[in-house]
Amino acid sequence: MRPLIKYLSDGEVVRVHEKALEMLENLGMKFEGAEAREYFAKAGAEVSGQIVKIPRSIIEEGLKTVPKREEFVLYGRTPHKDVHVKDRVPSLAAMTMATHVLDPETGLRRKATDRDLALITRIMEKLDTVTIASALVTPQDVPMAASDWYTWATSIKNTTKHITGGAVGKEGVRDAIKMASLAVGSEEEFLKRPFISFWVLTMPPLRVDENTSNVLMEAAVHKVPSVISSGGILGMTSPMSVESALVHTHAETLACIALSQLVNPGAPVIYSSYVRSMDMKTMCINMSSPESIIMKVGMSQMGEYVGLPTKMPANLRDGKVLDAQAGFETGMGGLAGALSCDFIVSMQLDMDLMVDFADMIYSDECMQILQRMARPLSFDDETLAYDNMEEVGPGNTFLETDHTFEHFKEEIWMPRYMERGTWENWEANGSRDIRKVCAEKVNGMLKELEDHEILPKDVRDAIDAVAAGSTEKAKNIKR
Amino acid sequence: MRPLIKYLSDGEVVRVHEKALEMLENLGMKFEGAEAREYFAKAGAEVSGQIVKIPRSIIEEGLKTVPKREEFVLYGRTPHKDVHVKDRVPSLAAMTMATHVLDPETGLRRKATDRDLALITRIMEKLDTVTIASALVTPQDVPMAASDWYTWATSIKNTTKHITGGAVGKEGVRDAIKMASLAVGSEEEFLKRPFISFWVLTMPPLRVDENTSNVLMEAAVHKVPSVISSGGILGMTSPMSVESALVHTHAETLACIALSQLVNPGAPVIYSSYVRSMDMKTMCINMSSPESIIMKVGMSQMGEYVGLPTKMPANLRDGKVLDAQAGFETGMGGLAGALSCDFIVSMQLDMDLMVDFADMIYSDECMQILQRMARPLSFDDETLAYDNMEEVGPGNTFLETDHTFEHFKEEIWMPRYMERGTWENWEANGSRDIRKVCAEKVNGMLKELEDHEILPKDVRDAIDAVAAGSTEKAKNIKR
Repeated sequence: MRPLIKYLSDGEVVRVHEKALEMLENLGMKFEGAEAREYFAKAGAEVSGQIVKIPRSIIEEGLKTVPKREEFVLYGRTPHKDVHVKDRVPSLAAMTMATHVLDPETGLRRKATDRDLALITRIMEKLDTVTIASALVTPQDVPMAASDWYTWATSIKNTTKHITGGAVGKEGVRDAIKMASLAVGSEEEFLKRPFISFWVLTMPPLRVDENTSNVLMEAAVHKVPSVISSGGILGMTSPMSVESALVHTHAETLACIALSQLVNPGAPVIYSSYVRSMDMKTMCINMSSPESIIMKVGMSQMGEYVGLPTKMPANLRDGKVLDAQAGFETGMGGLAGALSCDFIVSMQLDMDLMVDFADMIYSDECMQILQRMARPLSFDDETLAYDNMEEVGPGNTFLETDHTFEHFKEEIWMPRYMERGTWENWEANGSRDIRKVCAEKVNGMLKELEDHEILPKDVRDAIDAVAAGSTEKAKNIKR
Repeated sequence: MRPLIKYLSDGEVVRVHEKALEMLENLGMKFEGAEAREYFAKAGAEVSGQIVKIPRSIIEEGLKTVPKREEFVLYGRTPHKDVHVKDRVPSLAAMTMATHVLDPETGLRRKATDRDLALITRIMEKLDTVTIASALVTPQDVPMAASDWYTWATSIKNTTKHITGGAVGKEGVRDAIKMASLAVGSEEEFLKRPFISFWVLTMPPLRVDENTSNVLMEAAVHKVPSVISSGGILGMTSPMSVESALVHTHAETLACIALSQLVNPGAPVIYSSYVRSMDMKTMCINMSSPESIIMKVGMSQMGEYVGLPTKMPANLRDGKVLDAQAGFETGMGGLAGALSCDFIVSMQLDMDLMVDFADMIYSDECMQILQRMARPLSFDDETLAYDNMEEVGPGNTFLETDHTFEHFKEEIWMPRYMERGTWENWEANGSRDIRKVCAEKVNGMLKELEDHEILPKDVRDAIDAVAAGSTEKAKNIKR
């Protein structure tokens, strides 16, 4: 069977779903955008002020037309970077919007630049376990009102993998599509295989602002995927219980799925959630608290129940640097994610504020382990190897049997950076901890990738022109 | 429901069990000790040379009389250190037999001493998540043939918690019982609540040496628990497949359970397994490889199927020092263990060879998180908090509602050492990584515990006398 982790029984999954439908029908959602409300009203929802009470029929209709995970393909710019969700190989998705990096030369923390984003994206392009190469950092040296545009430009210029990003208003969505289309030659080509998707974040509890619904609706129009996510915080924007947070988080996601399908039935959607807890002493928001990870597994179960691909931030770290705390958070959240969802958002430290270049190498190595952990067992004659046991018999060794020789390469995962030798060898190699090993590796890659352009100059210039032209426009879009 | 992690479906669990029974019946087990073979022969097994072919009836009879996990109590020296397995709170068990420590003053690796073991045991006595305070290190400054005796003496003198340890021959078992009895006043008192247990390690594939069966039989005579463990290595002492390793590992454990019940029906047993893989480049044995962790979950499922308490080394680390590798291994293996077994063997580094004092503090903190991760969800009206959601309504905050105030303390796990503040605060506090924070804590504890004796001097002297008297005896016991 496929290995799995479960916090909810099948009956509890249904109970959360039913409670969410009840909540949408009786309490309703606050949609601040008039156009969104009109879509719901036209479909038969009761609208009063900004509150939309959504009958279950609208949600259920939406769940019928939204593309299901079995057929879902998340496109890369080139087909060999596509992800077929049905293959169930969990992979890494870059988190977005860190503001700082650890400078790879000095090791000191400083603000992230557009150049950092380019280099970070080129490194992710090379890492096998990364399938969504979103902008890990938001450059701090570009016009801030238009930072989404600059971020799209730099990401698109430096990877052939899928990218998920933010947008401001319908204009932001259209401009991102414009830049992505330049990279593949035409909008027509792009729309056949849209290799970008948009974050759609609700404002819990039960609220969607106008900008968000505009992004969701515009993405739906073009059938470009939306990653719909509700990010409640226990005790602040969610009730103080894991169970209840699952209900309204699921409800908000369902309402957004329904809106996307009212706009354009068949618009693709990815199910996500940033629901989490905070530290009651520091009031800092924790992505790697035990409650946060529990809720990621719960939300994965809900996303799977409604048949969607799932993307969860189960592998983010509250730890400041790549130490044993960040390591624990990577292992615990990573395993929870690998055994429950399709895309694991990852690769930031300091509560999603900072990127350590070395951490990308580390995260890729850890994800290889997690992919091994997620591989199904199969109890057939070959794997049960009863003949092999008969051949060897009590008290002897399997080392030189054919079965061992034929299977060890696929059965045993072998590390590139993790340490598994003797203490003496490790000392002779400089007593390096894993962070140092990965930093050396990434610094070597940085040198190789310094001038590694993957798009022709005229295309890059055309993409940059879209970003450069957005600064004034961005200021005037209502957020 | 109780959160869980599963690698085998219910049907696959049955399949492994059936294959193991088939293996015992057809291939048999090699029991090198004549007395063990006699027990099996008397019960109707076919004995030929050292091979015992065990019919399923003997195994099934043994599984009937062995005490079940629902009623299983693992005793401490005092009742408030007892562990009731049915409570399903996973906890830490100290691994045994490391040879080195990181000196807490110098931070340098050196051989472990008897004094180290005393201090390590006193620290474990203070850590809430540790329920089995076995000897993390084997002192290297005592007569080596009798090191088990010295290890028991020092452990028993320094903890009131349960201890699992090794023994040489029946004499070793009896002397450990003698020492433990001194700590509670009499053997009669000890046997009412045996607070020590014995490692029983098979020699895979399908082999038990004479010393091991002697320890198992002698422990059974006194109804002192045995921790039965088979530790195959993929491709060397197990076939090169996770699935087949589960079969013969389970088979070996079943055979030992049956022997214990033939000796004394009702003798308590804990189900364990050290089955693991090795690095094919370095030939080093890995406790934290993905295959090793998968097999620990699989073996936990098998142990639960036959109704026994389970103890798995899911939280050991191949990492040399407490870095982000050891952290990942702690998080991944720890979560796998917490959601599948009762006792998680832990707290060593460098492939079970070294103890870092700071790591005990770190492991305790991680285990608190894992205990939070293992707590069942319950979807009742209080946790679903629909009223609370109605009270707050779309777009508002839960921060000042009664529900939040009443629940935050039990819902949100709060760290003692993990970092969750701002970068600026962290820097102002000295930019310490988690290892440094834990090292400072443990060094403070060491000072406090330096002269912290928990047994009267005459009792300690009597225990020491048993150890001192064993040196000659130990040399003469056939291993």
